[in-house]
Amino acid sequence: MLLEKGSKFVFIGDSITDYERARPVGEGRGTDIGKSYVGIVDGMIAASDPSSRIRVINMGTSGNTVLDLKARWDTDVMDLHPDWLSIYIGINDVWRQFDTPLMTEKHVSPQLFEETYRSLIERTLPTLKGLILVTPHFLELNREDPMRKRMDEYGAIVKKLAKEYGAILVDTQAAFDQFLTYYHPGFINWDRIHPNTMGHCIIAKAFLKALEVE
Amino acid sequence: MLLEKGSKFVFIGDSITDYERARPVGEGRGTDIGKSYVGIVDGMIAASDPSSRIRVINMGTSGNTVLDLKARWDTDVMDLHPDWLSIYIGINDVWRQFDTPLMTEKHVSPQLFEETYRSLIERTLPTLKGLILVTPHFLELNREDPMRKRMDEYGAIVKKLAKEYGAILVDTQAAFDQFLTYYHPGFINWDRIHPNTMGHCIIAKAFLKALEVE
Amino acid sequence: MLLEKGSKFVFIGDSITDYERARPVGEGRGTDIGKSYVGIVDGMIAASDPSSRIRVINMGTSGNTVLDLKARWDTDVMDLHPDWLSIYIGINDVWRQFDTPLMTEKHVSPQLFEETYRSLIERTLPTLKGLILVTPHFLELNREDPMRKRMDEYGAIVKKLAKEYGAILVDTQAAFDQFLTYYHPGFINWDRIHPNTMGHCIIAKAFLKALEVE
Amino acid sequence: MLLEKGSKFVFIGDSITDYERARPVGEGRGTDIGKSYVGIVDGMIAASDPSSRIRVINMGTSGNTVLDLKARWDTDVMDLHPDWLSIYIGINDVWRQFDTPLMTEKHVSPQLFEETYRSLIERTLPTLKGLILVTPHFLELNREDPMRKRMDEYGAIVKKLAKEYGAILVDTQAAFDQFLTYYHPGFINWDRIHPNTMGHCIIAKAFLKALEVE
Amino acid sequence: MLLEKGSKFVFIGDSITDYERARPVGEGRGTDIGKSYVGIVDGMIAASDPSSRIRVINMGTSGNTVLDLKARWDTDVMDLHPDWLSIYIGINDVWRQFDTPLMTEKHVSPQLFEETYRSLIERTLPTLKGLILVTPHFLELNREDPMRKRMDEYGAIVKKLAKEYGAILVDTQAAFDQFLTYYHPGFINWDRIHPNTMGHCIIAKAFLKALEVE
Amino acid sequence: MLLEKGSKFVFIGDSITDYERARPVGEGRGTDIGKSYVGIVDGMIAASDPSSRIRVINMGTSGNTVLDLKARWDTDVMDLHPDWLSIYIGINDVWRQFDTPLMTEKHVSPQLFEETYRSLIERTLPTLKGLILVTPHFLELNREDPMRKRMDEYGAIVKKLAKEYGAILVDTQAAFDQFLTYYHPGFINWDRIHPNTMGHCIIAKAFLKALEVE
Amino acid sequence: MLLEKGSKFVFIGDSITDYERARPVGEGRGTDIGKSYVGIVDGMIAASDPSSRIRVINMGTSGNTVLDLKARWDTDVMDLHPDWLSIYIGINDVWRQFDTPLMTEKHVSPQLFEETYRSLIERTLPTLKGLILVTPHFLELNREDPMRKRMDEYGAIVKKLAKEYGAILVDTQAAFDQFLTYYHPGFINWDRIHPNTMGHCIIAKAFLKALEVE
Amino acid sequence: MLLEKGSKFVFIGDSITDYERARPVGEGRGTDIGKSYVGIVDGMIAASDPSSRIRVINMGTSGNTVLDLKARWDTDVMDLHPDWLSIYIGINDVWRQFDTPLMTEKHVSPQLFEETYRSLIERTLPTLKGLILVTPHFLELNREDPMRKRMDEYGAIVKKLAKEYGAILVDTQAAFDQFLTYYHPGFINWDRIHPNTMGHCIIAKAFLKALEVE
Repeated sequence: MLLEKGSKFVFIGDSITDYERARPVGEGRGTDIGKSYVGIVDGMIAASDPSSRIRVINMGTSGNTVLDLKARWDTDVMDLHPDWLSIYIGINDVWRQFDTPLMTEKHVSPQLFEETYRSLIERTLPTLKGLILVTPHFLELNREDPMRKRMDEYGAIVKKLAKEYGAILVDTQAAFDQFLTYYHPGFINWDRIHPNTMGHCIIAKAFLKALEVE
Repeated sequence: MLLEKGSKFVFIGDSITDYERARPVGEGRGTDIGKSYVGIVDGMIAASDPSSRIRVINMGTSGNTVLDLKARWDTDVMDLHPDWLSIYIGINDVWRQFDTPLMTEKHVSPQLFEETYRSLIERTLPTLKGLILVTPHFLELNREDPMRKRMDEYGAIVKKLAKEYGAILVDTQAAFDQFLTYYHPGFINWDRIHPNTMGHCIIAKAFLKALEVE
Repeated sequence: MLLEKGSKFVFIGDSITDYERARPVGEGRGTDIGKSYVGIVDGMIAASDPSSRIRVINMGTSGNTVLDLKARWDTDVMDLHPDWLSIYIGINDVWRQFDTPLMTEKHVSPQLFEETYRSLIERTLPTLKGLILVTPHFLELNREDPMRKRMDEYGAIVKKLAKEYGAILVDTQAAFDQFLTYYHPGFINWDRIHPNTMGHCIIAKAFLKALEVE
Repeated sequence: MLLEKGSKFVFIGDSITDYERARPVGEGRGTDIGKSYVGIVDGMIAASDPSSRIRVINMGTSGNTVLDLKARWDTDVMDLHPDWLSIYIGINDVWRQFDTPLMTEKHVSPQLFEETYRSLIERTLPTLKGLILVTPHFLELNREDPMRKRMDEYGAIVKKLAKEYGAILVDTQAAFDQFLTYYHPGFINWDRIHPNTMGHCIIAKAFLKALEVE
Repeated sequence: MLLEKGSKFVFIGDSITDYERARPVGEGRGTDIGKSYVGIVDGMIAASDPSSRIRVINMGTSGNTVLDLKARWDTDVMDLHPDWLSIYIGINDVWRQFDTPLMTEKHVSPQLFEETYRSLIERTLPTLKGLILVTPHFLELNREDPMRKRMDEYGAIVKKLAKEYGAILVDTQAAFDQFLTYYHPGFINWDRIHPNTMGHCIIAKAFLKALEVE
Repeated sequence: MLLEKGSKFVFIGDSITDYERARPVGEGRGTDIGKSYVGIVDGMIAASDPSSRIRVINMGTSGNTVLDLKARWDTDVMDLHPDWLSIYIGINDVWRQFDTPLMTEKHVSPQLFEETYRSLIERTLPTLKGLILVTPHFLELNREDPMRKRMDEYGAIVKKLAKEYGAILVDTQAAFDQFLTYYHPGFINWDRIHPNTMGHCIIAKAFLKALEVE
Repeated sequence: MLLEKGSKFVFIGDSITDYERARPVGEGRGTDIGKSYVGIVDGMIAASDPSSRIRVINMGTSGNTVLDLKARWDTDVMDLHPDWLSIYIGINDVWRQFDTPLMTEKHVSPQLFEETYRSLIERTLPTLKGLILVTPHFLELNREDPMRKRMDEYGAIVKKLAKEYGAILVDTQAAFDQFLTYYHPGFINWDRIHPNTMGHCIIAKAFLKALEVE
Repeated sequence: MLLEKGSKFVFIGDSITDYERARPVGEGRGTDIGKSYVGIVDGMIAASDPSSRIRVINMGTSGNTVLDLKARWDTDVMDLHPDWLSIYIGINDVWRQFDTPLMTEKHVSPQLFEETYRSLIERTLPTLKGLILVTPHFLELNREDPMRKRMDEYGAIVKKLAKEYGAILVDTQAAFDQFLTYYHPGFINWDRIHPNTMGHCIIAKAFLKALEVE
């Protein structure tokens, strides 16, 4: 496993990550870590190697775009002093362009997305032992669908940044795409965004593989 | 307007029709008629011609397939003695094939759909002054999407039956398709099925046109 | 249609307009726009001409008089920079004189109503492409009823102002009066003020006609 | 006071009488007697003459017409063996003709009203020491209003029956009419039917006067 | 009736007066006036003489002692500019001495009670047309019961103050005492303090008599 | 301690015993045994002598009179096969005579009380190792108070039966009387019937003493 | 993977399995499958090999012992015609002996446990393609703890039966024991029975390994 | 009894003490004192000697460690001016080391525990007539269990401090240990920390003995 024993591992993101985590910090007993892939990644790491003592913290917040991450980066990332950090953002940056197309002040352009994302990485990278970037996903196989097309554009930015900064990439879009050759997106969820338990397992599996967990 | 003054007009269907109507009969004061297109059709008819005194009853039930309609046809259609009847069914018959693909006992095949639908028409047509058949819809422009393709197959059955029995056809799929050339389906609803108020207006408008309301 | 493509259209008013709209701004997904005539006007415009891309915002607040509008005019109208504005106010200004006759500090006199209304128009008119004024209504055909008489007095002020400032008039009182020659007011609502879905359709139809929507 | 010491006094009627009484029998500690005029009549009799030991029971049921009274007359009147009985019915018999005009199966015609009312009196009168009949009311001074006109028709039947059977008449319509020369109906309630505390005091006062309570 | 037409009449007190009145001011439509004797007094005055246009306001607050009244006297009495004022206080001043005997800081001694009460009267009397003082009550006939004995002591202070300042006295203790010769206190309420509807009628009747309402 | 090791000990009674016990049988984990003196007796026996393994079951039911006990004696006592049984009944038999004096069908006369109580003892005594009878209580020191007087009458019956059948008597009235020489009844509860925790300790202490628990 | 493509896989058990599954059958959209290890096993199989189309059904019921399984075996196992079946039972059989030691009628002895378990296997085995037996667990490393000792006794029976009938054994006790050499049981849950997400991952991992899922 | 008549007795601690006490101060009518051993100690003292007039106040707060006590010591102890004080703390100081082992910032080391505890005693002792220190407990007989071992370490500190400052020691761990030779900890509670009523009786009994209550 890539993570050093005793590492503190923070996950930041939107509702995919959040899924009812505790406030203000998503860590503790019971379901404080939320019900998303974060808890499954945490549980599977501990089940694989309980000696690793990885401390996992869920800092996802539903509805967030990269701009929202920026606004809470100090308290929600820097103040926690993570060793490892996972960033899973971009879905709402794209989605608002399609579900509320006339409220243009809520849209985040690719330029603003990249620039803001980059600034977050640059602030944080020097303090980290490991950084994971996650592609935003849309459960739609048709790459000509306008929203899928747009999501791919943002995913390409994430991939570019991962390469540029030597971060580990977790390509959830690719993981879902493979799955969707066998099932219609509605098997995961009607809205093609929020995963059910099966969807969170698909994400978790992609993480575990990227982290080289047994 | 095609409806005769003083007609009793029953709408049967699934959640698109239902939308919180009163039980056991969707008629009465306040929001007893539900919040779907049925209330808008009712209201627009009365606003256009209050002298028409059309009595509108909403008998939609969420989650229904054509088999569920058959099971409640006696109490929910025949016993009400409608003059006019609208049937808006087929969405769940198709949807279950995609969102719970392994629960095959919940799927309604095109053959069973057509045969059951036909039997309902035949039982009822002699007692009616007017019959309206509505195509099931899926808010997806890509006709190669497997669920859209399947929905079109059931829509084609509805159109064939309308023609065969001389019923009025309300082609909601066509109405939505035109709209979707301007907006992504997420503007109506993330699940691409349940309309918001705008979606119900699109349906209502298609009804009003078919019924030749001013 | 009178509205220019891409216009931003704000509706301000009382509970007739509000009807459970989102706070602080009545715009967004789902039922954020509320359940009043505003959503039906919005939906019918989009159904008629989806290319128009009219952005509709509901800023009604239950219980408001013209004085309440004045108090929130900056944040709730000016800051939104509407192209078109609809003002539907006056009912509570009159109603309080009848349902709480002894609490005279809650009553708005015709003089104060006109003067305040006028000041709102004058502040806003120069920034608008279109202005709609709506008469307050009372669902009572007997023009000698004291509350109807009083409501007509305020309606006359609205008509005068519409003429004076070249605004479009939506005469909901007239629309309801025609309807009430066929039905008792209790068919709309026991309180003779708050419309049910049918009543909101009557209002919406009057708007659509005034706006020359197909 | 007309009531004999130790009498059992049952009030039957609709929501005006009911007002959250206990089920199945509106009698007991706390608010079991409901919050309507019945409790005030009970309380004022006891306050006037605590030695009278009148046992008061509220058997009102919201929404009832005279046909509903008939359906529950055995359990809700005869089985209680009242010495005195008050019948306050007719409002819903009329109201449904105006608020749901198309649901004609819910309307009770004057003929059916009188005939049913008469049968109830005839079944019960021989077992009673005293019978009180109450006119149904509508808080509208304009006697040409169609619903007021209709209510008066039913009120006239009640008065005729009171006279015919020697019952005590409580003319609540007359009591409210006098009050309404000073206040608009909205001061009692927007719906012009359900009294607030002030309205229940007006009714109670009419009862106390008719019963010759100090 | 002693009250001048158009008078504003404020009732201040504890839970006996309060009984779920609206906040911050107990006045308005529906049940804003609360469910206590205040509403019955208001209703019976209006029923007796609707031309009187008395404006009644309920400012009772549950749990209050005379010290609590003092703390809110500015906002809750002076700012309302009453013509008539009723003060019904003292029960909690006594009760706390018996139900929480060890929490002596919550007890109000007779000296402090009288001195505070007197200061409230002196501040307010010059601005009033009429002042009503009400004895605190305890529904216990045995005058040797320690709590009854103590309550009588506070009642005597109220009577003395009424005499001294020429206020109208409403002796609710006397009214209940007469009633209790016929019924056990448990018929009003188990706690011997909070009246049910019958108890509120006994209080209201005492007020109406003192105010010479027909 | 009088109880044999491993005894099953059932407590039957009214709300004093019940206090939110589990249904249908008041035994199990957590608060299944309820919050009354039963749990304290159970806990103090186990704390004194954990080797005793007494199995305690709470079968109290709020509002019960001796007639209600009779109606459920088979399922709630006999079927449980207790070794020891405690009967704590009579309060509601008396109370209803005072709080609902006119509903005479709810009153249980001393004769009926004794006769029913006796029949329950006679059915059960042969199957028991120990029987405890508890006097009904009323927290009122004045023995001339009509309800206290009446309660004493029923208490005397319980004492007589205890003597006659050789049962252990727990005289809760005597225990409370001693306490009330130091505190007003309101310190236990305003209604003078339902004990707070302190009151339940007084009852529990009387039980522990009678059972000769250390 | 051992499971054949298209297999139907039923999990039966107690609260460990159940965890808020849908009723009457734990299968469907959203969280119908519950929040236990069952969903993670299901999700991880699908994530590993979406072509397998395994249909997973959760039939756990909180609080069940092997006797409860027997009582619902017809409807909850046989009627579902599983290809594969997992049985995870025994915890409550043991636990009741420790948390309600005096309620002996709720205890299941090792003899009764084995005999009942065996009968269930024999009824079902002939109809299955695969059977999985799971040891009941107790998160306590001290093997001399009486409850751990007892749980091991029941675990030994499960192991013996697995061997005897050629079933696959999932030894969750062993999996947890290894984990507990690194963490105190309180890290999983205070009660040492119900797993948090981490605990469910430990169970799921043991299943995936036994089923030879990648 | 050691307590002087009329003493004020404050209990401070964690959830064992708190158990739903009133806020901000756990004193008053009904269940304001909470449902823990504090109410039983209070009730049993009053039942033993009602003339003692001991005033008991519950200031427990769930989840507290000794550091939390320190933070609220001014308002929650000093400002109340207790004559006697009981301190029951340490459980959470230890527990967090086992249930959230990675959140080390929440752990209180023995050194910090002792030092903080000592400072609280020194601030308060001069103002007290009596001080009671209570050992933190863990319901586990195996003294080699890591959490029991750790709890004993903190218990030893409490015992040392009690001796050093001449405080009365209530050794709840010893009381529970004796009980646990007869029953498994699960009979008190699954989590081995929070007592049920029986557990609170065990604690209360230890207090009553230490205070020499009859």
